[in-house]
Amino acid sequence: MTTPAPRPTDTMRYTREELTAEEIAAEQALFGPLAGATRELVEAVVRTEVDAEEVRAVTAQVESLVARLRARQMPGPFGVRFTAEGTVRGHGNAVVGLRNAVAPPLEVQRDTEQRRAWAEVVLGAQYEGPPGLVHGGVSALLLDQMAGEAASAGGRPGMTGTLTLTYRRGTPLGPVRIECWIDRVEGVKTFVTGHISDDEGPTVHCEGIFILPRWAREARAGEPLGDVLG
Amino acid sequence: MTTPAPRPTDTMRYTREELTAEEIAAEQALFGPLAGATRELVEAVVRTEVDAEEVRAVTAQVESLVARLRARQMPGPFGVRFTAEGTVRGHGNAVVGLRNAVAPPLEVQRDTEQRRAWAEVVLGAQYEGPPGLVHGGVSALLLDQMAGEAASAGGRPGMTGTLTLTYRRGTPLGPVRIECWIDRVEGVKTFVTGHISDDEGPTVHCEGIFILPRWAREARAGEPLGDVLG
Repeated sequence: MTTPAPRPTDTMRYTREELTAEEIAAEQALFGPLAGATRELVEAVVRTEVDAEEVRAVTAQVESLVARLRARQMPGPFGVRFTAEGTVRGHGNAVVGLRNAVAPPLEVQRDTEQRRAWAEVVLGAQYEGPPGLVHGGVSALLLDQMAGEAASAGGRPGMTGTLTLTYRRGTPLGPVRIECWIDRVEGVKTFVTGHISDDEGPTVHCEGIFILPRWAREARAGEPLGDVLG
Repeated sequence: MTTPAPRPTDTMRYTREELTAEEIAAEQALFGPLAGATRELVEAVVRTEVDAEEVRAVTAQVESLVARLRARQMPGPFGVRFTAEGTVRGHGNAVVGLRNAVAPPLEVQRDTEQRRAWAEVVLGAQYEGPPGLVHGGVSALLLDQMAGEAASAGGRPGMTGTLTLTYRRGTPLGPVRIECWIDRVEGVKTFVTGHISDDEGPTVHCEGIFILPRWAREARAGEPLGDVLG
């Protein structure tokens, strides 16, 4: 994804890393399938009914794969890495991270003119809360990310200030759509609204306030923010 | 965990299943380690730096383990199952589920007199949002569950109606504490408040309104709700 590259002076630990487009594509071709298989494993662990002996055998196998992957690993989390061309890689992100099997992951679509972002995804058994329904907190997790994506799509990247979720009815596990857009802008605050929906309409509504970080404010020094946004 | 067993008449698909305490303990001893190893795998996939050939070999192994677990599996999500003794098993739950590698999982502590619930957990690389920080949506996910646990602990189980998160500062990955309590009760609404904190204090504050479901209302027909809660 390409968003305005954060400044190295930011207080958060963004990392600059020079990679070619080919190297980035190769990384995706390598880690996409590994994370995809791991996502399947997570879901299979919830739903399996194989006998106890087989569960124990698989457990031992998973443990040995962990040891193989940990034979060489980064000292901490993946972080967020960017190149001079503005490609941002948040591969550890809990909602959109290529390498992260906690993430569905969402493949975010953006409309910068409409200052809108959306994604469609099928939520499996590992996202359950009430029986057969998406966990209310999972809806919050997805909406937080998508509200932030909408803010970014509209040229107003930021950290979540507040987020309010209103649950209208249960969201069945299965295919859902998450869609958020910028409602209005007031100074450093961006007001984003949106919802998660199934094929019968919205189930959870969200309103978020995102705060423009200092590096983005400095980038626009002297320009009225409303004008920058058009 | 023991909470009031939902009535079979509930609109949600709770399942009644008769299991002895020994069978439940055996299930935990079997699936706890499998999900634990899978959680480790999720984190290792984010952080590994082994070479491409090894990544591909591990991917093939994970795929074969998925096939073994799927050789016999339940047709849908785990659901929420309860016994006549009131033991509730939500093993697929995205926050507290024993079998769920998306869940940290939280081990919930409860104080029914104080109508309070809390948990301590170490959040690894798979819960990242901004670099080095817990994803804002993950904080929302954990707080939604714990707010619901506090409502239940106070004898007021319910579905989330609204949830408002206020982000005061970033939450570093690592050890966190999530704590929620009932603030007040108004008819079928239970107002819960709480926060997630690191060792320097709260980072994200939450306020939730939980709605008492019909089965719980019927169980108390004729009794003033305030009295039931003491």
